[in-house]
Amino acid sequence: MFMSAGKLQLIPLGGLGEFGMNCLALRWQDDIIVIDAGLMFPETELLGVDVVVPDITYLIENREHVRGIILTHGHEDHIGGLPWFLTEIHVPVYATEFTLAYVEGKLEEHKLLDETELIEISPNRKFHLGAFTIEPIRVTHSLVDCVALAIETPVGVVVHTGDFKIDLSPPDGKPFDLHTFAEYGKRGVLALLEDSTNVDRAGYTPSEWAVRPRLDEIFSRAKKRIFFSCFSSSIYRIRIALELAQLHHRKVAVVGRSMVESSEIAQDLGYLSMPPGLMIHPGQLRDYGPEEVVVLISGTQGEPLSALSRVAVDNHKHARVEPGDTVLLSSRVIPGNEKGIYRVIDHLCRREANVIYDDGSSGLIHVSGHGSQEELRLMINLLRPKFFVPLHGDYRHLLKSAQLATSVGVVEKAVLLEDGDVLELDANSAETAGKVTAGRVCIDSGSTSDVVGDLVIRDRRHLSEDGIVLAIIAINKRTGKVEHMPEIVTRGFVTGEIDLSDQAREIVNRTLDASSAEEKADYGVMKEKIRIDLKRYIQKNTARRPLIMPVILEI
Amino acid sequence: MFMSAGKLQLIPLGGLGEFGMNCLALRWQDDIIVIDAGLMFPETELLGVDVVVPDITYLIENREHVRGIILTHGHEDHIGGLPWFLTEIHVPVYATEFTLAYVEGKLEEHKLLDETELIEISPNRKFHLGAFTIEPIRVTHSLVDCVALAIETPVGVVVHTGDFKIDLSPPDGKPFDLHTFAEYGKRGVLALLEDSTNVDRAGYTPSEWAVRPRLDEIFSRAKKRIFFSCFSSSIYRIRIALELAQLHHRKVAVVGRSMVESSEIAQDLGYLSMPPGLMIHPGQLRDYGPEEVVVLISGTQGEPLSALSRVAVDNHKHARVEPGDTVLLSSRVIPGNEKGIYRVIDHLCRREANVIYDDGSSGLIHVSGHGSQEELRLMINLLRPKFFVPLHGDYRHLLKSAQLATSVGVVEKAVLLEDGDVLELDANSAETAGKVTAGRVCIDSGSTSDVVGDLVIRDRRHLSEDGIVLAIIAINKRTGKVEHMPEIVTRGFVTGEIDLSDQAREIVNRTLDASSAEEKADYGVMKEKIRIDLKRYIQKNTARRPLIMPVILEI
Repeated sequence: MFMSAGKLQLIPLGGLGEFGMNCLALRWQDDIIVIDAGLMFPETELLGVDVVVPDITYLIENREHVRGIILTHGHEDHIGGLPWFLTEIHVPVYATEFTLAYVEGKLEEHKLLDETELIEISPNRKFHLGAFTIEPIRVTHSLVDCVALAIETPVGVVVHTGDFKIDLSPPDGKPFDLHTFAEYGKRGVLALLEDSTNVDRAGYTPSEWAVRPRLDEIFSRAKKRIFFSCFSSSIYRIRIALELAQLHHRKVAVVGRSMVESSEIAQDLGYLSMPPGLMIHPGQLRDYGPEEVVVLISGTQGEPLSALSRVAVDNHKHARVEPGDTVLLSSRVIPGNEKGIYRVIDHLCRREANVIYDDGSSGLIHVSGHGSQEELRLMINLLRPKFFVPLHGDYRHLLKSAQLATSVGVVEKAVLLEDGDVLELDANSAETAGKVTAGRVCIDSGSTSDVVGDLVIRDRRHLSEDGIVLAIIAINKRTGKVEHMPEIVTRGFVTGEIDLSDQAREIVNRTLDASSAEEKADYGVMKEKIRIDLKRYIQKNTARRPLIMPVILEI
Repeated sequence: MFMSAGKLQLIPLGGLGEFGMNCLALRWQDDIIVIDAGLMFPETELLGVDVVVPDITYLIENREHVRGIILTHGHEDHIGGLPWFLTEIHVPVYATEFTLAYVEGKLEEHKLLDETELIEISPNRKFHLGAFTIEPIRVTHSLVDCVALAIETPVGVVVHTGDFKIDLSPPDGKPFDLHTFAEYGKRGVLALLEDSTNVDRAGYTPSEWAVRPRLDEIFSRAKKRIFFSCFSSSIYRIRIALELAQLHHRKVAVVGRSMVESSEIAQDLGYLSMPPGLMIHPGQLRDYGPEEVVVLISGTQGEPLSALSRVAVDNHKHARVEPGDTVLLSSRVIPGNEKGIYRVIDHLCRREANVIYDDGSSGLIHVSGHGSQEELRLMINLLRPKFFVPLHGDYRHLLKSAQLATSVGVVEKAVLLEDGDVLELDANSAETAGKVTAGRVCIDSGSTSDVVGDLVIRDRRHLSEDGIVLAIIAINKRTGKVEHMPEIVTRGFVTGEIDLSDQAREIVNRTLDASSAEEKADYGVMKEKIRIDLKRYIQKNTARRPLIMPVILEI
């Protein structure tokens, strides 16, 4: 590995040139620290893949130098790749209390918890890792317990903002730490690495608290059940929902795995208070009148198998939408998810629910967790960095962020890096110096099947070993019926004794039989159900993991 | 077919319950008229399909009663299904001059022009079709020469708005005909069928003219080339671009097939004036300085093979983006197209172009062609209809539109119909009465291959005859290289003498060789190129039309 003497190296491995899978390495001589280990969800072009993580060849090749992974906060695009990282490099993980709680669940799922050293960090408590001294600084975001990192290096201080906005009234009363940033700014910052997600937006991002008045209004007007849906990690939003439920004398049932897990963690750590008698089990919903309950439910993005999707097609054990109920999606429509989200909304409208979502006319029911232009400028003004590197975004966002930073008039030089670019820094210069291996790795995660803890790289090599299974299903659009037996096409898939085709056909038929007409009309849902059922069956019976692609044809 | 005596039947066959493929039938005893014959583009779930059109079984079964198809305007979602319709039912087509010009091109492509009777209609010139007397009424929209239809029936007047907004300053000076609508309102309207596309938006939609000041500013500031991209059917937008080019002393080159065709039609019919010396051939671009030209270019939606996509990866014969050039996307980002559009924008940013697109901070560079809530209310106030039926949209839009109509206080009853529902009307009642066959038909259009004029229903029956071809390509993400030979998987595809796999592998290799590294990194582009090349080859050599699905794997 090339390295100039007396230089600090800054090496983004993910998240610069795309949204998601954030990961950045900092190297001084033989010491490497890694900030964040995220994942991203695959584009539709990558069929049959569960998640995408950064290529960490560079870290694997320098395994003995990696001193630890530091996580800025608990969102999937910052921690989701961790199981994959830890199967390749065994290093301690540093994160705040809340973030660690999320990480623990994730590592347990992949049977990595026992062998991993987890170290709790807190705002303003410095710690040392090799040549680096790191001070976490409290920032605000849509999640709780988030930190930026001020990293003292032999050539100067580097500040990594993590994800942030400057929320002046966070619902948990733990404010953005303006003072520590200001102090670093006074003492001098070599480089600022800043979250550029919202660089397109003028002005300031509203506080997490800003949605409360409108949500209160919605609670006031609701005559029947309220289904309250938000990202399960939106602890602030859940907190507001619980407060409003109390205020309006409603009981709360939590529905959906991720929502249950997340709210339990938040309660354990004191971020949510649930007074006795507030919460009920979903099974108790039938014991209360519709005007007496709130259902806190996951699935704002129309994920095919989420609780809200199931409720929308009336296929949930406990929760049921009836005419006059209010369904609130306190979230944004993430680009790419429109079809799924709008399908769910249409199903809910057909059930005569009053669906309130981010359609531009619903008032302030959601706020972003990322700072807008003025907050990006404020951070630059506080820190007065010599050099600037934009983090998080497609190329055009990074470019705009670099331009914004330069225009503030404080920064000497803004450097636009993409994944794999190496930036060499000393007290006086910041120059790119070559590239390391970087890219995307597709992962087939065992966590959605019965095979737990197993991570497999989904690549060509793997394909030629394990093959490909196509399940072709012809659905009659008029009747919603499957008119022929599903066809199973396999390739490069050696099954020995088992006649996979017949068995697989059976599995697909069973999945189809267990689906309602509404589900069958929803190809996104059907494809995902079939993929998961087939995957589970094939892994159990053959120990193979072929690429599984359901194809739905209308007739 | 059921029919109550003395009732008018109103039967939507497409566009009610989805966006696109608009089609509605009106029946009085033995007379049926059809309004619009649209298509829609397939969801990503429907792989290997070109377009989707309404199921017109009902029209086919009642073939002898269909008196004609009337088109409200020339957008694909209103005329695109026409070749498919006309291969099934041979009836005259009625449309305004400009719409007919679009239709002619389309029918010629499918060799249907000679056998089809095309009849020109004009605003305020009534014509008769069976029991119906129809008066086209001029409306404004993003396209020119659009009409609503006032249809006199034995039970009263039915008004179908087509797509519309109320543009008080259309660039061609042909205003929305408030007076005729007002007169019908005074005389009494039985039912209004209203475009509900923008029912989510409060207020009024801005005029087509409203973008001119901001576009003028962009022209003023551009120091080098201007690439001006808009929907090729946005004749008003093209008109403004030409005016600004003249004003700022720039020559105009038109690039992209659809843009060339559309602007030629508009010029022929007097909607665009191109003074001598303004237009240049794209090949002449190199003869002018960058500050002397505007390139009018198609491809605002990131369509993989569009001119703008090709320019973005520097793979266009004549047009080339260089640092400092301005690229303007005067259009909206249609949900579902984000990935493709943003890929193109990122490529352009890497070429150091100044890319201006609808990111919320670019000013008024695009306006919608559909009326907002106040325009919907104004139309209802003008017409004072007894009954109301929302047109165009997903279920939730139709629902909101019905609610809006009822809230105006004029409408006696709003009826929410979906495709296939039959509404029976007389002077005093509007009741749904059963369903006819309706749904979607997937079409494999010959027009993208060398096989011209050929339309094939893409269904299960067809699949078992013609089979399926999978081309699996493994691209090394780091190097952009294809590391193995592509794998070809076929099923149910009888080729006789030809060894299809080897040949197909060759085709795929050739396509890959002819693509730049940037294109290879863009899976959407690669899949479409491979699909089209394979399709062309297979159709030529085997006369088969298998379903072709390229699968790209990263390694």
